[in-house]
Amino acid sequence: MMTQDSSDATRFMRQAIALAYQGMAGGHGGPFGAVIVKDGEIVGQGHNRVLSSNDPTAHAEVTAIRDASKNLARFNLSDCEIYVNAMPCPMCMSAILWSRIGKVHYGAPVEAAEKIGFDDKAFYEQLAKPLEERDIPVVVVSECDAEALACLQSWIDNPSRIPY
Amino acid sequence: MMTQDSSDATRFMRQAIALAYQGMAGGHGGPFGAVIVKDGEIVGQGHNRVLSSNDPTAHAEVTAIRDASKNLARFNLSDCEIYVNAMPCPMCMSAILWSRIGKVHYGAPVEAAEKIGFDDKAFYEQLAKPLEERDIPVVVVSECDAEALACLQSWIDNPSRIPY
Repeated sequence: MMTQDSSDATRFMRQAIALAYQGMAGGHGGPFGAVIVKDGEIVGQGHNRVLSSNDPTAHAEVTAIRDASKNLARFNLSDCEIYVNAMPCPMCMSAILWSRIGKVHYGAPVEAAEKIGFDDKAFYEQLAKPLEERDIPVVVVSECDAEALACLQSWIDNPSRIPY
Repeated sequence: MMTQDSSDATRFMRQAIALAYQGMAGGHGGPFGAVIVKDGEIVGQGHNRVLSSNDPTAHAEVTAIRDASKNLARFNLSDCEIYVNAMPCPMCMSAILWSRIGKVHYGAPVEAAEKIGFDDKAFYEQLAKPLEERDIPVVVVSECDAEALACLQSWIDNPSRIPY
């Protein structure tokens, strides 16, 4: 017997897939769509818009998070879940962590998606490497050590700062 | 003797730090600023706007990347470098990888920043764990396996797709 939960999950995932097709049809970007759900209702949605918006950060999950945050007028989405038609990349998974979304539902099975060319292993490997072994240089501007650190310290020292 | 390169790096880093202070003063978000440079000129800049925009993805690097991409009207920033006053978090480092930015210059030394509370170890650890060991559930919607995979395949099968 299919539970109500399962039926809802199917409905939300189909909406994510529909968004992905719409985005591709419009030439907006890659084959990705996402919906964000709170209390059984969609509160945000998006699709990949890297091409149409010239924004390399405009992945489906990021656009959906921006949409939900705007609609709910808050940056904490801990009472929400996200449905996306493929496993999020490291940028999107980190965006999900920052948004405090409580659960991720993905569509295409990871191994099958990898077999047809969708995987983020290269990025995960880069993130796991020491700085000096990365593909792109990541260097400190040592002349500004103290100034840069003082800037961070000023945030810590402000008792009225709002954590996020 | 300070080289011209070093002097430029100091100038760009100071601008990133200035943006961070401006953002804090305006109540926009945390103590982070970033500038994107092409051929010795600033082509994009931003600061953390998580609080003011209610957007958990609006970190300094992401806002700067969006700004540079808009100004240059392209999503590939491989001829650019980014200056940010602290080590990018995994979301921002991944955004940098997606943007193809060629070099990252950071300000506050990593260990010193960690000592006063700025580190992203928890997120890096989450990203490195198998799905079943993460703090938030990451689950497949197995009823939609085939549909979700077919959507990805349709992108691969489109000969006129634009890689990004």
